[in-house]
Amino acid sequence: MSTPQWVYKFGGGSAEGAAEMRNLLGGKGANLAEMSSLGLPVPPGFTITTEVCIAYYASDRAYPDGLSDQVDAALAFIEETVGARFGDPENPLLVSVRSGARASMPGMMDTVLNLGLNDVTVEGLAAKSGDARFAWDSYRRFIQMFGDVVLGVEHDNFEEIIDTQKMMRGAALDTDLDAEDWKVIAIGFKERIEDETGNPFPQDPRDQLWGAITAVFGSWHNDRANTYRRLHNIPESWGTAVNVQAMVFGNMGDDCATGVAFTRDPSEGRNTFYGEYLVNAQGEDVVAGIRTPQHLTIAGKDEQGSDLPAMEEVMPEVFGQLNEVRLNLEKHYRDMQDIEFTVQQNKLWMLQTRTGKRTAKAALKIACDMVDEGLISEEEAVFRIEPESLDQLLHPTLDPDAARDLLTRGLPASPGAASGTIVFSADEAEARAANGEAVVLVRIETSPEDIHGMHAAQGILTSRGGMTSHAAVVARGMGRPCVSGAGDLRIDYETQTLTVMGREIAAGDTLTIDGTSGEVMAGGVPTLQPELSGDFATLMNWVDDVREMKVRTNAETPLDAQTALDFGAEGIGLCRTEHMFFDADRIVAVREMILAKDEERRRAALEKILPMQRQDFIDLFRIMAGKPVTIRLLDPPLHEFLPHTAEEMKQVAQGSGVSVEDLRIRVNELAEVNPMLGHRGCRLGITYPEISEMQARAIFEAAVEVSKDAGAPVEPEVMIPLVSDKVEFDLLRERIDAVATLVFQETGTEVPYLVGTMIELPRAALRAGEIAEGAEFFSFGTNDLTQTTFGLSRDDTAGLLKEYERRGIFETDPFVSIDVDGVGELVKLAAERGRETRPKVKLGICGEHGGDPRSVHFCADVGLDYVSCSPYRVPIARLAAAQAALRLKG
Amino acid sequence: MSTPQWVYKFGGGSAEGAAEMRNLLGGKGANLAEMSSLGLPVPPGFTITTEVCIAYYASDRAYPDGLSDQVDAALAFIEETVGARFGDPENPLLVSVRSGARASMPGMMDTVLNLGLNDVTVEGLAAKSGDARFAWDSYRRFIQMFGDVVLGVEHDNFEEIIDTQKMMRGAALDTDLDAEDWKVIAIGFKERIEDETGNPFPQDPRDQLWGAITAVFGSWHNDRANTYRRLHNIPESWGTAVNVQAMVFGNMGDDCATGVAFTRDPSEGRNTFYGEYLVNAQGEDVVAGIRTPQHLTIAGKDEQGSDLPAMEEVMPEVFGQLNEVRLNLEKHYRDMQDIEFTVQQNKLWMLQTRTGKRTAKAALKIACDMVDEGLISEEEAVFRIEPESLDQLLHPTLDPDAARDLLTRGLPASPGAASGTIVFSADEAEARAANGEAVVLVRIETSPEDIHGMHAAQGILTSRGGMTSHAAVVARGMGRPCVSGAGDLRIDYETQTLTVMGREIAAGDTLTIDGTSGEVMAGGVPTLQPELSGDFATLMNWVDDVREMKVRTNAETPLDAQTALDFGAEGIGLCRTEHMFFDADRIVAVREMILAKDEERRRAALEKILPMQRQDFIDLFRIMAGKPVTIRLLDPPLHEFLPHTAEEMKQVAQGSGVSVEDLRIRVNELAEVNPMLGHRGCRLGITYPEISEMQARAIFEAAVEVSKDAGAPVEPEVMIPLVSDKVEFDLLRERIDAVATLVFQETGTEVPYLVGTMIELPRAALRAGEIAEGAEFFSFGTNDLTQTTFGLSRDDTAGLLKEYERRGIFETDPFVSIDVDGVGELVKLAAERGRETRPKVKLGICGEHGGDPRSVHFCADVGLDYVSCSPYRVPIARLAAAQAALRLKG
Repeated sequence: MSTPQWVYKFGGGSAEGAAEMRNLLGGKGANLAEMSSLGLPVPPGFTITTEVCIAYYASDRAYPDGLSDQVDAALAFIEETVGARFGDPENPLLVSVRSGARASMPGMMDTVLNLGLNDVTVEGLAAKSGDARFAWDSYRRFIQMFGDVVLGVEHDNFEEIIDTQKMMRGAALDTDLDAEDWKVIAIGFKERIEDETGNPFPQDPRDQLWGAITAVFGSWHNDRANTYRRLHNIPESWGTAVNVQAMVFGNMGDDCATGVAFTRDPSEGRNTFYGEYLVNAQGEDVVAGIRTPQHLTIAGKDEQGSDLPAMEEVMPEVFGQLNEVRLNLEKHYRDMQDIEFTVQQNKLWMLQTRTGKRTAKAALKIACDMVDEGLISEEEAVFRIEPESLDQLLHPTLDPDAARDLLTRGLPASPGAASGTIVFSADEAEARAANGEAVVLVRIETSPEDIHGMHAAQGILTSRGGMTSHAAVVARGMGRPCVSGAGDLRIDYETQTLTVMGREIAAGDTLTIDGTSGEVMAGGVPTLQPELSGDFATLMNWVDDVREMKVRTNAETPLDAQTALDFGAEGIGLCRTEHMFFDADRIVAVREMILAKDEERRRAALEKILPMQRQDFIDLFRIMAGKPVTIRLLDPPLHEFLPHTAEEMKQVAQGSGVSVEDLRIRVNELAEVNPMLGHRGCRLGITYPEISEMQARAIFEAAVEVSKDAGAPVEPEVMIPLVSDKVEFDLLRERIDAVATLVFQETGTEVPYLVGTMIELPRAALRAGEIAEGAEFFSFGTNDLTQTTFGLSRDDTAGLLKEYERRGIFETDPFVSIDVDGVGELVKLAAERGRETRPKVKLGICGEHGGDPRSVHFCADVGLDYVSCSPYRVPIARLAAAQAALRLKG
Repeated sequence: MSTPQWVYKFGGGSAEGAAEMRNLLGGKGANLAEMSSLGLPVPPGFTITTEVCIAYYASDRAYPDGLSDQVDAALAFIEETVGARFGDPENPLLVSVRSGARASMPGMMDTVLNLGLNDVTVEGLAAKSGDARFAWDSYRRFIQMFGDVVLGVEHDNFEEIIDTQKMMRGAALDTDLDAEDWKVIAIGFKERIEDETGNPFPQDPRDQLWGAITAVFGSWHNDRANTYRRLHNIPESWGTAVNVQAMVFGNMGDDCATGVAFTRDPSEGRNTFYGEYLVNAQGEDVVAGIRTPQHLTIAGKDEQGSDLPAMEEVMPEVFGQLNEVRLNLEKHYRDMQDIEFTVQQNKLWMLQTRTGKRTAKAALKIACDMVDEGLISEEEAVFRIEPESLDQLLHPTLDPDAARDLLTRGLPASPGAASGTIVFSADEAEARAANGEAVVLVRIETSPEDIHGMHAAQGILTSRGGMTSHAAVVARGMGRPCVSGAGDLRIDYETQTLTVMGREIAAGDTLTIDGTSGEVMAGGVPTLQPELSGDFATLMNWVDDVREMKVRTNAETPLDAQTALDFGAEGIGLCRTEHMFFDADRIVAVREMILAKDEERRRAALEKILPMQRQDFIDLFRIMAGKPVTIRLLDPPLHEFLPHTAEEMKQVAQGSGVSVEDLRIRVNELAEVNPMLGHRGCRLGITYPEISEMQARAIFEAAVEVSKDAGAPVEPEVMIPLVSDKVEFDLLRERIDAVATLVFQETGTEVPYLVGTMIELPRAALRAGEIAEGAEFFSFGTNDLTQTTFGLSRDDTAGLLKEYERRGIFETDPFVSIDVDGVGELVKLAAERGRETRPKVKLGICGEHGGDPRSVHFCADVGLDYVSCSPYRVPIARLAAAQAALRLKG
């Protein structure tokens, strides 16, 4: 067996590696090789592969056989290409040693620059560059970096020596120091290193090189890198590559420069060259912000009204070369690139290229433009947009230039920004909004009784509850910005104040929330309205061409249904009927129903609700015009509809003709320690079948009415919630079918309908095979399924989940992105068992996860027929579904 | 293919069937055949098999080919054996037609007697018996039964005719009517049947016979039978057999009699003949209670002080035969039998034998006696006792002869009976009990704060909460009788009263509860103390000889641990450390810990708890002397330790030096909507590692101390609760191991220990393979696993579960007997996945199910190493485990 190739050379117009060898060479190494092959000016160098890293750790930090020889050969190649030699007193070769993993891990691992300098070569560099200060400054930088990174000498040591020298010289800035100063400092550094480590600073460039390589490999396992990998889910087993490359200097005089650039505008997406540079500077200086960077182009400079000359003016020729590189790279990579370059004595060197980060707006424009330019296909364009990023485009945002008075941060529960007067009750929100006032509703937590106030408010802020608390779910559904679980807030309804770290703000004051970032600000901040440009529509057309899963919406109001339809929803996946029970004109009848002492009186109260509920469904069926509408029967425990405070009880008692005492008794009877696990869902329908019967009647009467006067057929799908056993389902299905038969007889019209269930309990998933004997569809209620699978209340554990994410216990909030390993296994198993019984069982998801791209991919893997999400997430789900379809197509 | 045998004959000293053909012939038919083969006097007859029933329903209620011929042949056999013919005017054969299913379904299906009578044969019967009244009474009875059962004529019709005849004759009782009256009535019955059905009453005995057979098969699907089968889990597919048998009459004069008997005393188990009979009577009369039945034996008569002569005196010869039959049957069946007999004109006929029901005490004595008598083996004896029935033997019971004033019924949450003064608070319970008063603690529901009161009380009564509510679980653990979820009770703490259906009872009044039946009675009722006779000890020795699974106990107090040890526990499977936190001297420090503003102050408070907690463990380790002790780290959410009412808050604030306001804020901060799914279990240990560290230190310091001065090694098993992911487990295990290492270093002593987890969340079950990488044992916490798998709070759904059982949706309460299909699948899967990773992972169960026999069998099937249950259920679990081992051995 021959020795594997551990080292890949690049530079001088060719390379052994290529861009697609990212796994072996890391991102940086692969792209350096690619640029070199393209004939772009890349300082020669070589990449030690990730396999060396893996072998190194596998054999207890020993290097594999053959590596040393291959490094020697590659070094000789650099020497030859550059025409300089390692350790040569006259013409010394200097190299950089950098990490480069498969995934970008910015700043997490170690780097050593200017390697090859020693007491002899520093003089050679001084002579060759004609700049002794540059040479000694470079040397002391190398000693410092090497001392810190390779030898583990604390950097305080070095700063102390520099400070001492500055003091002695009365100098304030580094630039006040001259060549001799840097020489003194370099000698001081070497002495300190010998003191600290017991060994002299290594003078042999080869020793230096191996020390640096080992340090970089070692840094794959430093604490920062380990934490970063855990947080970003980067497997430890990938390892890092190490890049050794000839140094080039942007700081050797005014014919030198260094810069970073994007091949297009990363903010707006326009096809213009966009970047900054500094004359006579090193890479760090551009980023460090000590000197003000200058624009690359005259257009850029003019646009920003800058006085500093553009590179296009200062170095027109080199700029021309750079611009050509830019065009070559875009044509080659077929995507916008983020590049680094250095100009050494009027010669352009390319140091890095990678795919550039961009705003959602820019991503959209670049993708569409590149399709127009023939650079990429429509399908590729679909892949270029991060679905989650669309959210930025669909909601009002805070003016980034406006001042803000940040109070605290909560969870970014529903995107968009809102400013308004603080109100602490839903009723006041409604009253003030009716007078045209913009209000922000502030609650410890919200409940279904607050819905009218949430609708009336511009935004919602809560101090308790997570990403899928009531406030968050409802706000997302309505498209209202919401910050939830802002735990630092002390909300006091009695005094009508909220307090943050001792600062008190009262009802009537203005407050701004940013539901995209979770920020809460005192006072108003101007907002910018979203513009859905033509690019958005263009992309969504391509999306729908490749998409296979349907996208429905969770909606129960005509407004939400219409919004979702405008966003491209293909039906309603979840209509929560209980939300229809809270309107002021209904809650009285609902309470009458709950307080009824027998079935007869309960039926009488339900009779009053029937026409209103029927009208709800008529409206939805009309809007959805032939698209399927899934209606869930009443789900929450009945106590949610009853008053809680003594004051409310008095009011309700008066209104409903029940004594306060009787009302209190009923409220106590219905109270539950764990309402999530209580008397709700199908359990209500089983114990009070008359409620399900009323709802079924409302559904079928509405369906008959709309099917009579509308062109399109109506497709109601009746959903029985919280089923844990086939018998529960069958009992209710029997009643629903009986009502349907009756209504069809009474009206002389039949409409097709389905009856199915929500799979939202672990037991329902396990028993899905049996349940599917009667159920024609399953809708995965992954909110509750996540709560029960984890035994984790989404209302109570916002803080805990934050801490779990912080500690890396949970990679993501399982209420935001589906827990594939646990909840996902149950979903898969239920889908399999359901299909085994009923191959055509319709499968969908209606939990919050329906609007989360990662979860949408999971749904595609399981082969669900549709996902359903809140109206404002419909475009996100469409895009994610399209990407999933493309991915599965291969 | 020859025709299958549809009909099995018996009688005349032989039979085609046998006792072991119960599935084919039903219980009654199989035993009639068996008795016949034994040469016992059985009236000849035949059984139409259950397969006919199955074929009948499978082919849309048509009988299979060949049945008719086989019935004819069997009928001819009866005619020949009896020497009478169907429809013979002189000597008519009369038969009974009875159902007989595989499992007993008493009274659910139909029966026809005296079949074969018509207008002609009635005269023959009158002549042959010399008793016209008997003949016409028999005929009218037959018409009435046949009319009701076969022809569907309402029985009011017949009663009306009898009443009219009585009125006309001025007669009050049936016995006032003579032969002519019954003839008039029989004629009236026939006319009414013709009016109602349009057809004359069938005169052909063969038509009668097929009508009756069809009616009996038809009754397999009547409403009563369907409901009974659903409730008793009898598959519809089993079908019933039909028995056609020659009639014998116990009502043909004073040389006739009828009776029922047990071959041993079913109440005490003594080996004496035990039964009742009536001279000149039919079977129904013994049961109906119109005449007072007489004792069989002189001894029985004397014992009860009866004046009525015993059968032994009245018919000594026939009694001698019967007694011989008794001895034969016991020898043959090797179990106590429940028999029915009729004496017709001094001839004994056996009509039924089956295994007799008996009390727990009798079962124990009979089993032990039969082993002594050489009738059965010790292993068989182990199988003869229903584990659940042992509960009757371990607790005080109400004197069955005492008067009781029943108020209402709740759930039989913890067995045993108790009387005492009503108190409504735990503190008062403790105070009064300290003065030697017997009290019953009455609460709407209990919480961990009530534990001291529950301990002090003789019994506990709650109006809310199911079989596994806090009250129920804790009471069972303590062996205190408890009735929970008595929903009719209105408990008012303010007025210190409880009201049931308008009847008010106040604190200070006496109340009695029976936790075995769920009854609640006003006033006192005398109780009987349990006697654990020698038979109990004998049986438990046999049990332990065959048992394979270990049985541990759930206990945290020395008293409970000692009780369990006395009952044979082999270690502690679950020590709930939070129960140790509520003692008056600790709760202050616990609250200080919770209210601490930072980790430092929290640690200071924990320092105070450490010595007390350590002493707890020292006590337990000493009692368990080398047996394994599983200690669960703190599990409940912290708010459970804080005060709830304003009054309590004031007290606690004063005591702990915190302002009421701060306390209120902290209580509100910690409040949870769904505490079951909240910040508890390992989540506490992760966010407050110092709590787990203190507990680990207490465990290891105690283990070291006891191992130093005790002979036996200490085996602590540290259990991390509510884990949903490997990372949670690993984080806490790391801390526990660190504390162990430290304590072992400090003390210079090492003790072996295990660290494991409770599998109590669906996700833990699914991820068990990963979790077992770090966990050395799993204990299935099936209470919480049932709650989360079903999404069902055991605290909130007692009423719902009752209703579910009533409607047959759940066969049994899943909190009582493990849900094999759902929760069970998760347990199996977790066991498999855990073992795949760690073949020797120790597996146990510590939910309430550990003491439920059906669940214990499930645990044996899965191959768990042990079950753990409350002390008083240890013997039950031992017996169930022994039976499971025998069953698995085959």
